[in-house]
Amino acid sequence: MAGNSFGKAFKITTFGESHGIAIGVIIDGCPAGLDIDLDFIQGELDKRRPGQSKITTQRKESDTVQILSGIFEGKSTGTPISLLIPNEDQRSKDYSHNQDVYRPSHADYTYDVKYGIRDHRGGGRSSARETAARVAAGAIAKLLLQNHGIGIFAHVTAVGQINAPNLSTDNLTELLALREDNIVRCADPAVANQMIDFIDLIRKDGDTVGGKISCLVKNCPAGLGEPVFDKLHADLGKAMLSINAVHGFEYGSGFAGSEMRGSAHNDVFIATEFGTKTQTNFSGGIQGGISNGMDITFSVAFKPVATIMHNQQTVNAAGESAEIKGKGRHDPCVVPRAVVIVEAMAALVLADQLLRNKSVKLS
Amino acid sequence: MAGNSFGKAFKITTFGESHGIAIGVIIDGCPAGLDIDLDFIQGELDKRRPGQSKITTQRKESDTVQILSGIFEGKSTGTPISLLIPNEDQRSKDYSHNQDVYRPSHADYTYDVKYGIRDHRGGGRSSARETAARVAAGAIAKLLLQNHGIGIFAHVTAVGQINAPNLSTDNLTELLALREDNIVRCADPAVANQMIDFIDLIRKDGDTVGGKISCLVKNCPAGLGEPVFDKLHADLGKAMLSINAVHGFEYGSGFAGSEMRGSAHNDVFIATEFGTKTQTNFSGGIQGGISNGMDITFSVAFKPVATIMHNQQTVNAAGESAEIKGKGRHDPCVVPRAVVIVEAMAALVLADQLLRNKSVKLS
Amino acid sequence: MAGNSFGKAFKITTFGESHGIAIGVIIDGCPAGLDIDLDFIQGELDKRRPGQSKITTQRKESDTVQILSGIFEGKSTGTPISLLIPNEDQRSKDYSHNQDVYRPSHADYTYDVKYGIRDHRGGGRSSARETAARVAAGAIAKLLLQNHGIGIFAHVTAVGQINAPNLSTDNLTELLALREDNIVRCADPAVANQMIDFIDLIRKDGDTVGGKISCLVKNCPAGLGEPVFDKLHADLGKAMLSINAVHGFEYGSGFAGSEMRGSAHNDVFIATEFGTKTQTNFSGGIQGGISNGMDITFSVAFKPVATIMHNQQTVNAAGESAEIKGKGRHDPCVVPRAVVIVEAMAALVLADQLLRNKSVKLS
Amino acid sequence: MAGNSFGKAFKITTFGESHGIAIGVIIDGCPAGLDIDLDFIQGELDKRRPGQSKITTQRKESDTVQILSGIFEGKSTGTPISLLIPNEDQRSKDYSHNQDVYRPSHADYTYDVKYGIRDHRGGGRSSARETAARVAAGAIAKLLLQNHGIGIFAHVTAVGQINAPNLSTDNLTELLALREDNIVRCADPAVANQMIDFIDLIRKDGDTVGGKISCLVKNCPAGLGEPVFDKLHADLGKAMLSINAVHGFEYGSGFAGSEMRGSAHNDVFIATEFGTKTQTNFSGGIQGGISNGMDITFSVAFKPVATIMHNQQTVNAAGESAEIKGKGRHDPCVVPRAVVIVEAMAALVLADQLLRNKSVKLS
Repeated sequence: MAGNSFGKAFKITTFGESHGIAIGVIIDGCPAGLDIDLDFIQGELDKRRPGQSKITTQRKESDTVQILSGIFEGKSTGTPISLLIPNEDQRSKDYSHNQDVYRPSHADYTYDVKYGIRDHRGGGRSSARETAARVAAGAIAKLLLQNHGIGIFAHVTAVGQINAPNLSTDNLTELLALREDNIVRCADPAVANQMIDFIDLIRKDGDTVGGKISCLVKNCPAGLGEPVFDKLHADLGKAMLSINAVHGFEYGSGFAGSEMRGSAHNDVFIATEFGTKTQTNFSGGIQGGISNGMDITFSVAFKPVATIMHNQQTVNAAGESAEIKGKGRHDPCVVPRAVVIVEAMAALVLADQLLRNKSVKLS
Repeated sequence: MAGNSFGKAFKITTFGESHGIAIGVIIDGCPAGLDIDLDFIQGELDKRRPGQSKITTQRKESDTVQILSGIFEGKSTGTPISLLIPNEDQRSKDYSHNQDVYRPSHADYTYDVKYGIRDHRGGGRSSARETAARVAAGAIAKLLLQNHGIGIFAHVTAVGQINAPNLSTDNLTELLALREDNIVRCADPAVANQMIDFIDLIRKDGDTVGGKISCLVKNCPAGLGEPVFDKLHADLGKAMLSINAVHGFEYGSGFAGSEMRGSAHNDVFIATEFGTKTQTNFSGGIQGGISNGMDITFSVAFKPVATIMHNQQTVNAAGESAEIKGKGRHDPCVVPRAVVIVEAMAALVLADQLLRNKSVKLS
Repeated sequence: MAGNSFGKAFKITTFGESHGIAIGVIIDGCPAGLDIDLDFIQGELDKRRPGQSKITTQRKESDTVQILSGIFEGKSTGTPISLLIPNEDQRSKDYSHNQDVYRPSHADYTYDVKYGIRDHRGGGRSSARETAARVAAGAIAKLLLQNHGIGIFAHVTAVGQINAPNLSTDNLTELLALREDNIVRCADPAVANQMIDFIDLIRKDGDTVGGKISCLVKNCPAGLGEPVFDKLHADLGKAMLSINAVHGFEYGSGFAGSEMRGSAHNDVFIATEFGTKTQTNFSGGIQGGISNGMDITFSVAFKPVATIMHNQQTVNAAGESAEIKGKGRHDPCVVPRAVVIVEAMAALVLADQLLRNKSVKLS
Repeated sequence: MAGNSFGKAFKITTFGESHGIAIGVIIDGCPAGLDIDLDFIQGELDKRRPGQSKITTQRKESDTVQILSGIFEGKSTGTPISLLIPNEDQRSKDYSHNQDVYRPSHADYTYDVKYGIRDHRGGGRSSARETAARVAAGAIAKLLLQNHGIGIFAHVTAVGQINAPNLSTDNLTELLALREDNIVRCADPAVANQMIDFIDLIRKDGDTVGGKISCLVKNCPAGLGEPVFDKLHADLGKAMLSINAVHGFEYGSGFAGSEMRGSAHNDVFIATEFGTKTQTNFSGGIQGGISNGMDITFSVAFKPVATIMHNQQTVNAAGESAEIKGKGRHDPCVVPRAVVIVEAMAALVLADQLLRNKSVKLS
């Protein structure tokens, strides 16, 4: 039983390998009547596109998206929306040396064990290229959420040990807009510069570094999330952990919250003119797996990219020791391009839960 | 669309409220021919049972499990296994004061918003009592995994700011056996004593504290996990995040790995007499979402229990300010009883992925 | 991957064997706020109960249903509803002779091949006893549909070669009420008497006979059904074919429609004061897999019950020729007790599609 | 919740409208290592292609299939297989007159009610053109089944009231090969000629006619099918009923079996040198929802095509009376082109159940 679908009501299925003809995605369950802005979808893809700045891979792909079905005269029709992104810069010969040698901390070995066959021209299905399909689908989920007034904003909060300070919630939306002013997509301009310099240094070393992304969901209505297994944060966690290179997820108070006392951690309810709110938000906008109307907050940890420009010892398909030489064009740090992927996956979860919630009350 | 099922091949559906007649679980997909040891299932439940030590809630429930179907002459038959755990100590009147007042950082408010109706006699469906059903189902998953030689071992690695030091992998299995020698279930006896004393102090304060649990899966074969969405660690993450009070999940190098360089983080492959292994294990036994045959490692962060013995400001169902008085019988720290829940959910994920993997190759 | 769940939004999972402790069902997805009338559920079960008349099996089971969860103060809470029906009249010793001998046209042989183990005390999971769980769940689906004004009415239209004449649609609801006036549940009293006499004759012969049931859904709103695979009639067909002994399903014009010309078969649209209707209804209320607001009509064919009171040649578990003697207490004809099962499965499909339809349009 | 996916282990999702850019299908779950013969897939599509003979629509579509992913060096890799079929002969202007007028017995009205928007250039998603995607996916399912020795053979058994006589099972495979010798695809040459003449007559009348297709599955191993809901015949029934224009399904003895007595209908088991078999096969190769190793047999009833060359009364989108004029290029009878669709859907069900069965026993 394969696992290339995500979501139950707003369901996507992605397909395609890094060095095949195309990648793409089918969305089954997008409500009829939604205005589909192709330029918006392309704009989202452009944020993930390789070659966009000096701190990303220099591989060239225009990542031009085509809509094959599900849209009529600019609106969704309720039928499956299929989005196709042709692969342009395949350069298969770059990868012929990888056929029988397992790249450390890549998925070459595990795919070979699992399937007994592997498209060795690149990462194949395990390549982060697959996430372009998610970004395209996530763009449509964002359009659906915008229609309900819900906004999703992520930015880079750490590159290696360089951390962005906590941003105040009040002006966060404004600050997050600033993230697009710098190539690392950190909303704090001063820290952003340090991050960029550090990634540049790492790149010149032929090395890579990990990082963190935090995400904020504004204006999510209370009531989304389906206990006891499809809790809103459980679905968000799975969505984030399914992104390449992600090693950790926390929401609300997260790991730090595990050190706190209940008397400090409890979010006291207060009556306001805008209805019931909480004084603090250690719950991260989710209680019992259901959104409570406060901002939803979560963070995602990315390991360093596995492809480095150094020679490394490894093992080949015959089980013998081998050496792998560093070559190719890869990202020194994945987080600047991953911001839009985090947002896309969050949008897919929220769109799914929004639609699922429509059937839980008799009304 | 509700969310009370988990798994696709080894699928469970739980039911029941904290103050109803019973809770329980249906397992659909347990292979036929498995020896079902009822004593083992009951033993697992006993580890989660309330009232087991001075640092857990003093509420009394024997949590005696009954098997209603799916077993014949001690073996699974391939038909749905139903497990029932009657609720004994309901004491509904203890909770009548909660009818219209929302307990801070509980799910009272969100359930009311979502469903418009709520069993106010207790946490209802949002109560951690529901996890007893998971432990019962997880016990059967463990029996299936044992049949394949796979073992799952969790223990408490933090209570508040008291952390257990890193344990060496070599003797970890032995150390983990030690966890059952102390009531906090930490494999380091010295740290365990500190934790117990601290929880006792917290309890006397009428307060609560969070903590962490780490888990190790030994002898998992390479090949489990279904890219690109049902990656092994993504399913583990969702499983853990669906447990009450969990606020974070990381695997392998986790959040710390996001600070590392690729040259230090990559797990170099080595040829050994036991086949292909990795020199380090920052990947936590999972690469590209698929197990690689090394130990699987992950950690889970629990927030402090929301019920405290202090008076707290809050809001009632009419949206007015109110006060809630601390009373009842609750856990000062959830992690000692949650160790077996973490193991149960891990077992459910691995059993599911084990069965799913049977159909991915031609022969 | 087992198959004991049905439905996606209104999802049921049944469990239990004919000679185990109990059978039951979990409903996940019943909307919160629905009035649950336990007497109504029991009344539906009473229509399926064995021993209800001289033309059914004389086996005694009160089929008393208990609700374990999901209901609070008479209303559904949106959490899983669990319904339990204890097995009373197990009489396992009656069946010991069946342990190693395969009953012709039963599922003994196929269960043994598939699972390698079988509860030989009776039909186990393949027994029609399992349908009691469906009737209980279907009763709750009926309550949901009644809340939306939708009514489901089935009756017996054939026993062997005795057919009820076509009933006129105008007074069908009234006629269908008559079905409960006779023990065979045929809305035509004269034909009902012939059917009863014939079944009695068959029973005295120690033989069995097949039959047909037709079903009518009144007041179904237009728009239910999810192309292209979960078409309303495709889901109805699967639901009916999953009932024990069903060998055929047709809707609207059915098999007879395959002999017609398009010019005669097309249902011309007409403008009426009640909106758009069709002049004829060969479409059976469903076009393109979606309800069109007309009456939904379908028919179901049941084979004769396999258990007969004659001696039969067969094969044992060792693959050797054997003889099986006719004994036990069984139905000479299944259709009188199956009317409520057909209605229950139809109700489950319609409730599921009703809830699924809530998310297909933008507002 | 949309319904454009079918299958659980061998899962397909189809997309595309009749007058859009392309239609296609994603297969998720095809095992790795299967030889994929593109010519075979194209050959299957050619059997469904319009314009193939004088008794089909004269619309021209080459239906040339492209594989975008999931295949490497001629073998499946275990990743999603995407198949694309561009639409060539769209001729949208032919359909502009249909924008606001509902064609009788088509899905125009129900799609408008359900979605509030509709691609009125043709049938859109409700067009039988969508079945080309199923045939392409079914071809790959057939390759998987061939690998296990399983063969699927359908042919036309009725056009209007012209029925093919019962064919003896012994030489049926040979006879079925004959079906490709005539354009109506009936294995009985004499009846085939009558059918062809009759369809030609109907076509000249500007009318249409229904028909029947029977299908035989040879060499299916015992054990496939997942009780109690995903019984093999229930899945086959749903698959067939999801095909455009299908109004009925029966297996084994079918509707005729409902007239029989149990003593005549029971399939007595016999011990043979090839193992346990049944003397007769009224069960149609399926008992208790599980294949028993005998031939699987079922029949499907198709209503007459709704598009006729006559003028018809109808209603427009404003709810007013209107007239629709007969024009366009359509099939006078759908069954000759539907034979390969029936086979494709049967192959998809069997491939799915074959893979699901791999996880039910401990082994």
